Amino acid sequence: MLTPSLPRPLRVREEARTSARVALSAATTEGVQLRTRDIPSWLAGRGRANDFRVDRIPFAQLDGWAFDEATGNLGHRSGRFFTVEGLHVTEQDGPFGDGPHTEWHQPIIKQPEVGVLGILVKEFDGVPHFLMQAKMEPGNPNLLQLSPTVQATRSNYTKVHQGGDVKYIEYFVGPRRGRVIADVLQSEHGSWFYRKSNRNMVVEVTGDVPLLDDFCWLTLGQISELLHRDNTVNMDARTVLSCLPHPDTGAGALLSDVELFSWITEERSRHDVRAERVPLLDLPGWKRGESAIEHEDGLYFRVVAVAVQAGNREVTGWTQPLFEPVGLGVTAFLTRTFGGVPHVLVHARVEAGFLDTIELGPTVQYTPGNYAHFAPRDRPRFLDTVLHASTDRIRYETVHAEEGGRFLNAESRYLIIDADEADAPQDPPPGYAWATPAQLTSLVRHGHYLNVQARTLLACLNALAVTGR
Amino acid sequence: MLTPSLPRPLRVREEARTSARVALSAATTEGVQLRTRDIPSWLAGRGRANDFRVDRIPFAQLDGWAFDEATGNLGHRSGRFFTVEGLHVTEQDGPFGDGPHTEWHQPIIKQPEVGVLGILVKEFDGVPHFLMQAKMEPGNPNLLQLSPTVQATRSNYTKVHQGGDVKYIEYFVGPRRGRVIADVLQSEHGSWFYRKSNRNMVVEVTGDVPLLDDFCWLTLGQISELLHRDNTVNMDARTVLSCLPHPDTGAGALLSDVELFSWITEERSRHDVRAERVPLLDLPGWKRGESAIEHEDGLYFRVVAVAVQAGNREVTGWTQPLFEPVGLGVTAFLTRTFGGVPHVLVHARVEAGFLDTIELGPTVQYTPGNYAHFAPRDRPRFLDTVLHASTDRIRYETVHAEEGGRFLNAESRYLIIDADEADAPQDPPPGYAWATPAQLTSLVRHGHYLNVQARTLLACLNALAVTGR
Repeated sequence: MLTPSLPRPLRVREEARTSARVALSAATTEGVQLRTRDIPSWLAGRGRANDFRVDRIPFAQLDGWAFDEATGNLGHRSGRFFTVEGLHVTEQDGPFGDGPHTEWHQPIIKQPEVGVLGILVKEFDGVPHFLMQAKMEPGNPNLLQLSPTVQATRSNYTKVHQGGDVKYIEYFVGPRRGRVIADVLQSEHGSWFYRKSNRNMVVEVTGDVPLLDDFCWLTLGQISELLHRDNTVNMDARTVLSCLPHPDTGAGALLSDVELFSWITEERSRHDVRAERVPLLDLPGWKRGESAIEHEDGLYFRVVAVAVQAGNREVTGWTQPLFEPVGLGVTAFLTRTFGGVPHVLVHARVEAGFLDTIELGPTVQYTPGNYAHFAPRDRPRFLDTVLHASTDRIRYETVHAEEGGRFLNAESRYLIIDADEADAPQDPPPGYAWATPAQLTSLVRHGHYLNVQARTLLACLNALAVTGR
Repeated sequence: MLTPSLPRPLRVREEARTSARVALSAATTEGVQLRTRDIPSWLAGRGRANDFRVDRIPFAQLDGWAFDEATGNLGHRSGRFFTVEGLHVTEQDGPFGDGPHTEWHQPIIKQPEVGVLGILVKEFDGVPHFLMQAKMEPGNPNLLQLSPTVQATRSNYTKVHQGGDVKYIEYFVGPRRGRVIADVLQSEHGSWFYRKSNRNMVVEVTGDVPLLDDFCWLTLGQISELLHRDNTVNMDARTVLSCLPHPDTGAGALLSDVELFSWITEERSRHDVRAERVPLLDLPGWKRGESAIEHEDGLYFRVVAVAVQAGNREVTGWTQPLFEPVGLGVTAFLTRTFGGVPHVLVHARVEAGFLDTIELGPTVQYTPGNYAHFAPRDRPRFLDTVLHASTDRIRYETVHAEEGGRFLNAESRYLIIDADEADAPQDPPPGYAWATPAQLTSLVRHGHYLNVQARTLLACLNALAVTGR
């Protein structure tokens, strides 16, 4: 016989209280544990307390990783973690898409498992604090950055690599131990990953949480300050922070929500992109050496290998491949105010590894070196506007690195730049649309709308609103 | 020199006026053009006015279609329309997914182009009317059903098959001629299509619209009445109607929106489904005869071929393959009222052809015949509750067919059934959650949340709210 459940009161569908509390944390620039100005030295101290070393090695010195004889694909003997394979990308012209027809080959990372990027939240002195970790990743330019509470692939927390437990993972998987503030699958870099997504979670708890070494509780205001420092807040933290709810002032926008959805649907429909996985062996345009797979023109990125020694990781030493972009990227939103409401210019970007053709990216997301040889009229739209922006129009500029677990020194200048009608017209060219930060915040509750670079910029926009610089 | 755009007033992000006008149309049970009770005879008249005939043929009589010698895949010599290929589906167990490990092979339709399903709306006597078409599709049990204004693949409207123009297509592609009410890419049948989606659009215009043969303007109240008639409103119309905004009463729900998102994210993350396209030739478990490809146990569906003669189609005669399910399906929502608010029990369904692992489906979506030989405890959850529901608990029951352009006699009983704690507990088993129709209406503004069967039931739920039966 069934035991009937007791009737439960219904929930309010949208908790305005949650976004108000996020806003309170954002407005609080000092936390209970560390003074904001002491955080960089705390991070440096954690770096000294742990013994990290990363060395480049030839592929032959990879341990457990090998190129498959038949396909040339690079994988781990366990069949887990990830593989580096080839991708053949075709964008169709008519009748299937708007084209023009383009086609290329490239290496790509295939990592089918969904990881968890989670931040634990707890109230101290009435203000929500976020539990951040000082975490080493081999590809970070400075090795150690401020990371989410948990940053784990399924292989990590199911112990495929037989290392230590993932700290605090019990708050994010298994029976729910707190209140969910955000929980959404978001894409990662569509140019380097094949259909990768990670679960971005924010969970608030009320009970005691033991504080472990390498972790600290910070307010969102403190993290916002740190988002103005180069190479300090890692990509995983930035994408999770971008998913936080913020109070919606109810302001209007150039496009209503349904007009914005319609524009996205139109952009998604007019591109017909086919990405076929192919063997990495003899990939057209790419050559494999002893220590790198690189493009024959030296452009885009290289596949390389590193050996890692670390004291406080789940395992103490390992080797792995990394993708190393060639050159410093430039990633920027142009911003304008219409009718008193700030807007940013989003770009419907085709990236070969996206699950669903396009996602909204920044106005500009390029490595300028890849286009240096192009004639001005063939250079990417808005790139020169960003590169030549005068200082008084730069509202935000910080260097951030992409995920240090897969990418080596993948640094980009992230910028938010004031534009005018001459730079960026109210009626933008095809592929671009003006959206308000509030609209982006409502899109990012769902997956596959904002790419990871746009999510970093959304976190920076929100930080800028707080710090008011 | 650039001509600056004139400043434009901002839009309100959410137009409550639109959903109020949809509600007005839904409450209006007679229209300006046809009396509701005369619509079936109008439909029958359109059927008589057009000369339709569909005959089953052996594959050898297909014109322009052939099995590829190397792969056995069935395709058109133009390389367009669609192909029938093989799919090898694996659901992984740990550590990648919750499993259990399952694996099967099946034929699948691959049709990479995005079609348009569009309904034109125009106000008459102050009430929005929807322009519906009496359209023949070869797989419909009764050939002719009420369809959207436009139902066209890109091949259709770019004239790959060199037929007539697609009527009214100019309202849905090219420069916008009206106000968008809905525009979203939605999945189609994940069990029969490989990653297919169509653009579901509703566009309102104010100017003159010529009324062509086979078309009529109906209120949403009239269409709601027709949704209670077997095989009358086709699948394409149902899915577009499900995307309409409806007034949100602000009622609460058992799960807040973020809890519902979190449950969906959890379901999406815990399944690891890999679907690899494989040759149709010698597909394990399937056998190809002269007139059908069928499962060796006679279950699931058959691939067959038909010849079509039609007077009012874009082309006057053609042959094509169709998928023909074995047996009548049963598709149902169990519904309960919690705290005074109706909820339906959604099921996170894995279908091999989904772009993103799971979508929310009805509580029950099965062809009972495929499970008749199962022991009671192995039969699909909630199926027997639906099959044995007493008449007084059936709030809605109508037979609808799936898309007649690809599926032959794919009929299912669509049901909405009152449940109690014994049938369907407030705390449902894993894979199921209670959601309100308002929550589903907010999810369906985005793609890949509700599968096509759940969208049909959402349209029926909304019709039921109007007709109050």
